[in-house]
Amino acid sequence: MNLIVDVGNTYVKFAVFKNRNLLHKLSFKLTEFKNQYNNLKKEYPKIEKAIISSVGLLSKQEVELIRLDFPVVELSSETNLPFENLYATPKTLGVDRIALVSASVDQFSDRNVLIIDAGTCITYDFINKKNQYLGGAISPGLRLRYKTLNNLTANLPLLETQMPESLIGNSTDTSIHSGVVNGVVKELDGIIDEYLMNYSDLTIILTGGDTKFLLNQLKNTIFANSDFLLEGLNFILEYNSK
Amino acid sequence: MNLIVDVGNTYVKFAVFKNRNLLHKLSFKLTEFKNQYNNLKKEYPKIEKAIISSVGLLSKQEVELIRLDFPVVELSSETNLPFENLYATPKTLGVDRIALVSASVDQFSDRNVLIIDAGTCITYDFINKKNQYLGGAISPGLRLRYKTLNNLTANLPLLETQMPESLIGNSTDTSIHSGVVNGVVKELDGIIDEYLMNYSDLTIILTGGDTKFLLNQLKNTIFANSDFLLEGLNFILEYNSK
Repeated sequence: MNLIVDVGNTYVKFAVFKNRNLLHKLSFKLTEFKNQYNNLKKEYPKIEKAIISSVGLLSKQEVELIRLDFPVVELSSETNLPFENLYATPKTLGVDRIALVSASVDQFSDRNVLIIDAGTCITYDFINKKNQYLGGAISPGLRLRYKTLNNLTANLPLLETQMPESLIGNSTDTSIHSGVVNGVVKELDGIIDEYLMNYSDLTIILTGGDTKFLLNQLKNTIFANSDFLLEGLNFILEYNSK
Repeated sequence: MNLIVDVGNTYVKFAVFKNRNLLHKLSFKLTEFKNQYNNLKKEYPKIEKAIISSVGLLSKQEVELIRLDFPVVELSSETNLPFENLYATPKTLGVDRIALVSASVDQFSDRNVLIIDAGTCITYDFINKKNQYLGGAISPGLRLRYKTLNNLTANLPLLETQMPESLIGNSTDTSIHSGVVNGVVKELDGIIDEYLMNYSDLTIILTGGDTKFLLNQLKNTIFANSDFLLEGLNFILEYNSK
């Protein structure tokens, strides 16, 4: 069994894979790390190896805690990867994007693939049929847009994410819901259309925390896979264990 | 002559109109208010009345400074307006949006009009042929998107606004430029398309600080008018002086 540790901007995720099957996943705040880790070890005593992917701030102590138990791959730009990285600055490619691209070359190796990860940020990543990663884009995710309207302006309220009832909001709240949610949807549709004009045989994957909220709003045909990043990390771990 | 005082989230603008002609405009930080006001009075001794529109924080002292010299309209939801406000919560409609809608009914009274103000926020405002204001939407502007990627995430840099060279960024910086700028452009195009599907005879106005940057990126035909808000304030002042 494999343990996947994915440290994001806000939460930590643990996942346990047996071969390619996701047996268990769990999300919690960084402060609960030690307790959650000890519980997981008891529940899954057959874990043999682990991979850690961290865009946030996992401490050395926490990494050592895992290292004492298993061989660990700490994902970085130095890790041996299953794709050709054509990024101009490969060392600056985030570990979350590395994981998504790895899942793509594992599962859709003969296709052009656009991966859209709609979470804290919305990341776009493009991998061509030759398993070459070309790059993509980063824009603020749904929550960031709500938050920044409140944080960085004088008068706007902080709202919970909500599907707008119409294009034309008739109050401050409904105007914000329309602007943020319809704005993200139109951004996604427009960017996808641009890729479709440039690349045939395009497979589009939607993943990340806002997948369910956004999926039915998009006009293009899309594969939704909330576990794509975890599957990519599991693939990198296997790829580096041979 | 009319003095227009427009206090935004970041800057103050002074404008001087003679009838419908914009003679002078000036943008500065709030801290320079008193000096700039005294200079302007010397330069334009024929100013007869003023309007103040403030989404930011103009102090009572600063308002009194102007009131001592001229009759002043302090724009609020209580002001007598040249359009029918169908907003469900009319008292919460921002003064900047009131000004834009007023310019629209003054200049395009027989058309359906979508006003897009691309500044700190991007606001969308729709006014139908009957000069009824229906509402719209609010989303984060270009700079807010750049800022929030830096402020509210762990690792991303704060960049100056820059036109992306391609859809696919191949570094952190070019990925951010692509995500933010192409994202805003696709949002604008997509929202405009949605209005065009719903309303015939639609006139689209683009205004606000990012007008020049965005105008040539949009696929739809648009009127660019950087002074639309100031023209609207001047119209409200005249409308309330009869």
